[in-house]
Amino acid sequence: MSTPIQEPTPGSLTGLRVIEISTSVAAPFGGQILGDLGAEVIKIERQAGDDTRKWAPPAWNGESIAFMSFNRNKKSVVLDYKTDEGKKILIDLLRDADVLVQNLRPGALAKAGFTWEYLHELNPRLIYCEMSGYGHTGPRAMQPAYDPLLQAFSGIVSMTGEDGGEPARVPVSLLDMGTGMWMAMSVLEALRRRDMTGHGCHVQNSLLQTALTWITSPLIGIAAGNPAPRRLGSGFRGVVPYGAFPTADGHIFISAGNDDIFRRLLGAIDAQDLGEREGFTTNPERVENRKLVQDVLGERTSQFTLDELLVRLKAANVPHSPVNTVDMVYRDEQVKATGMLQPLPHPVVEDLEVVNLPVTFDGQYPPLTKCPPALGEDTVEVLAALGRSEDEIRALIADGVVRAATEQAPA
Amino acid sequence: MSTPIQEPTPGSLTGLRVIEISTSVAAPFGGQILGDLGAEVIKIERQAGDDTRKWAPPAWNGESIAFMSFNRNKKSVVLDYKTDEGKKILIDLLRDADVLVQNLRPGALAKAGFTWEYLHELNPRLIYCEMSGYGHTGPRAMQPAYDPLLQAFSGIVSMTGEDGGEPARVPVSLLDMGTGMWMAMSVLEALRRRDMTGHGCHVQNSLLQTALTWITSPLIGIAAGNPAPRRLGSGFRGVVPYGAFPTADGHIFISAGNDDIFRRLLGAIDAQDLGEREGFTTNPERVENRKLVQDVLGERTSQFTLDELLVRLKAANVPHSPVNTVDMVYRDEQVKATGMLQPLPHPVVEDLEVVNLPVTFDGQYPPLTKCPPALGEDTVEVLAALGRSEDEIRALIADGVVRAATEQAPA
Repeated sequence: MSTPIQEPTPGSLTGLRVIEISTSVAAPFGGQILGDLGAEVIKIERQAGDDTRKWAPPAWNGESIAFMSFNRNKKSVVLDYKTDEGKKILIDLLRDADVLVQNLRPGALAKAGFTWEYLHELNPRLIYCEMSGYGHTGPRAMQPAYDPLLQAFSGIVSMTGEDGGEPARVPVSLLDMGTGMWMAMSVLEALRRRDMTGHGCHVQNSLLQTALTWITSPLIGIAAGNPAPRRLGSGFRGVVPYGAFPTADGHIFISAGNDDIFRRLLGAIDAQDLGEREGFTTNPERVENRKLVQDVLGERTSQFTLDELLVRLKAANVPHSPVNTVDMVYRDEQVKATGMLQPLPHPVVEDLEVVNLPVTFDGQYPPLTKCPPALGEDTVEVLAALGRSEDEIRALIADGVVRAATEQAPA
Repeated sequence: MSTPIQEPTPGSLTGLRVIEISTSVAAPFGGQILGDLGAEVIKIERQAGDDTRKWAPPAWNGESIAFMSFNRNKKSVVLDYKTDEGKKILIDLLRDADVLVQNLRPGALAKAGFTWEYLHELNPRLIYCEMSGYGHTGPRAMQPAYDPLLQAFSGIVSMTGEDGGEPARVPVSLLDMGTGMWMAMSVLEALRRRDMTGHGCHVQNSLLQTALTWITSPLIGIAAGNPAPRRLGSGFRGVVPYGAFPTADGHIFISAGNDDIFRRLLGAIDAQDLGEREGFTTNPERVENRKLVQDVLGERTSQFTLDELLVRLKAANVPHSPVNTVDMVYRDEQVKATGMLQPLPHPVVEDLEVVNLPVTFDGQYPPLTKCPPALGEDTVEVLAALGRSEDEIRALIADGVVRAATEQAPA
């Protein structure tokens, strides 16, 4: 059954220009969201390019997967704005831009002359998003930061991993990507404010502020005088059994939120005998005997294959999920049905698939309009649109002020 | 040094009305963001209230910390919209609303008569956000879902935890809260679209779609033919040493992104001898001997206290962070400097502190205007604003159609 094809409606940022001076993940992901919503996003890169272009494997036909993950629907311009000529070009770009987003080292852009005061005077309608590691005030304000270090600093690493084991990292960039999401949301808010006031505002966020939001409940718990949360593996503080259990050929995640579900679970795995065992009867007892209960149940679940357990737990109406690996996720029928993975043919990676913005509007994902760009792919086009002649562009390239992808440079 | 006090500017949603029919985390967190940005958010609760009101400890003076984490800046109305009278009230509310957000079980609101078609006809300007577990099409579309089960389903649990150990859970609600963030962002986008077209649209998202976005790079890696990522504890695929290392009194997170940093690290911990040891010399060798290198380095780092190592690594310019526990985070000077934790005195919890929206606009966080509400705290006010008389409200309460917090009910 195929869905009728319908062209997706362009997003509300169509006609707006975003200048993204960025590297790595936070600002690129935020910029990509703005591009998905229709903005013309011009990514300013150094001669060496965004760091992710050179991140270690995995690559696909030599193209960095990290870069391709966070840079579709945008243009690439290589520009050294620390040179006099380069600075003029950036000023020209910002004069007509709606949004400037940057995640350079704290203070770097201001040092090059682009303070909020200057930017606001240059273009009072410009919205300026300044992204940092630790926030814009305080003893660490000027320190650079990375997602994993901030996961450690903000308590997330301390809570992740086995009970009694070593602390672990969250394997997704929840601080970098989360900060990009807050930035994109804030741009939409700032645009609405601009519609009312006529002028842009200065938006600031950081990985640390994002991290504190993820741990809202634990932080309020500390304010209330409770102890810091400890590591519980795949478990949950107030409920046992809850978490990943071994099977003969993989893991299954089980959540027995109350004693009725627990009885149904025992029935489903032919373990009714455990229902009367001391320490297993009620949830508070099981929480008290967490490790024992988990180990004993794990012995029982490992007698079954994953497929057998999926059938039995479904029949018994026990909340559960397979613990899928990412290759299983990729092939899953439900994942396919979401339409989240979409082909975006790329000159070097013909079979490129990307992950859509995770929201539909009237049933449609926002359109994919442009591949992740080659370094400097759009330098010439953007400079020409600013009124630079072919001769001027050639000179700028020769002087190392800008760089163009080979096939784009004027002969 | 104190910052000059300045009243924060109200957000751009001031004057707009959001109806939130919700429970747990995803929709409440999204609704709270909209309230932070100025919307009047009317939360419709069942007689029993949002599930989080009864979540297991921790509580603060008997008030649920989970509920207080995700429900400030909104009103609480208890309403049974499945009764005839209740349905009329909900219709009256929606007629003048700008946004309806819900995360009920799939199909539940449509079954009560509130389909997108009906809503769009009732109020063509209404934006309808439908949040689900697995997305709105596909074999699992009608299944309810929870953050931890979806973490397992989407591959996140399979990647989290020790190398060779059991899979672990991410201890923050990155799917629930992330889905709330995407929803809030989509409302801002849909409002801009409405400014252009005059009509509201149907926004749909889900925990699964959010999860697939978090694992964008691993998914594209699978499409490229790479194997599924495996668990690496606090480590990182391409770099060793990288991760949490033991000290005499806690853990420290170290990132030695290149061989120069590795030499500086060895110098800082008096371990220059390891620089010449076979298998330790270059990053590719260290990645090959990951476990050995980590164990040997861990023996050395555990000879120092955390404070000693913080001083030594800072002096050697080696990227690092303490692995803070949440109580340490709460007391940290940098965290205080961000201003993210803010008092919001509550009738039952006088010392309540909440976590701000993690973004400042012109240096100001959005204002905190209302405590997390008692169940039905605003029922009477909202009904009166709809034109219901005191007699009518008394009858609605008596009939169990609505419920008011005790001190709010008409005598």
